[in-house]
Amino acid sequence: MDERVGQVAVTFVSRRNGRDEAGYGAAAERMEALAAAQAGFRGVDSVRDSSGFGITVSYWVDEASASAWRDHPEHAATRERGRDRWYDFYVVTVATVTRDYRWSAGNE
Amino acid sequence: MDERVGQVAVTFVSRRNGRDEAGYGAAAERMEALAAAQAGFRGVDSVRDSSGFGITVSYWVDEASASAWRDHPEHAATRERGRDRWYDFYVVTVATVTRDYRWSAGNE
Repeated sequence: MDERVGQVAVTFVSRRNGRDEAGYGAAAERMEALAAAQAGFRGVDSVRDSSGFGITVSYWVDEASASAWRDHPEHAATRERGRDRWYDFYVVTVATVTRDYRWSAGNE
Repeated sequence: MDERVGQVAVTFVSRRNGRDEAGYGAAAERMEALAAAQAGFRGVDSVRDSSGFGITVSYWVDEASASAWRDHPEHAATRERGRDRWYDFYVVTVATVTRDYRWSAGNE
């Protein structure tokens, strides 16, 4: 319980424009692996539906590590490509976790 | 810009078990409408993919309104039904927004 309290959650809400699926897929896979290799990375949850609407939440040990990922040169370049090629819109929200709880059908 | 700074974001990450689609769908629709009618509600983003994995983020003006929604009797009863019937697992994370930014292809 409470394992994410104090972490920084970066939520990326976006809609894909449906173009360049192959390019987008390769870049998304690369960004997920690169993020996971950064200092301070604490996990990610990501989902996109068939309409192209998606939410990705990445978790960081502190604000400095979240900002370092934002400023990572390859991430910044990919974000630029995303604006040119892949997205209709996106919204990024940075927030500090104050509480959390989890439930699983296997642990009742 | 910065329109969500200071708001409380409640992130619900879950996996559906695939059973009782009709009951789940009706309850999800009802909960979305009920949440939107609560004092302090400031919006919601929600997506679920075909595997049943989903992320919903609701935004609240402050911690008190987020907690009031958690404790709403009908919401609490539906959460109980969800554990009995609809979910393999879920994780709830409550966080305070410190910054946000948005980009849209139409506003370059």
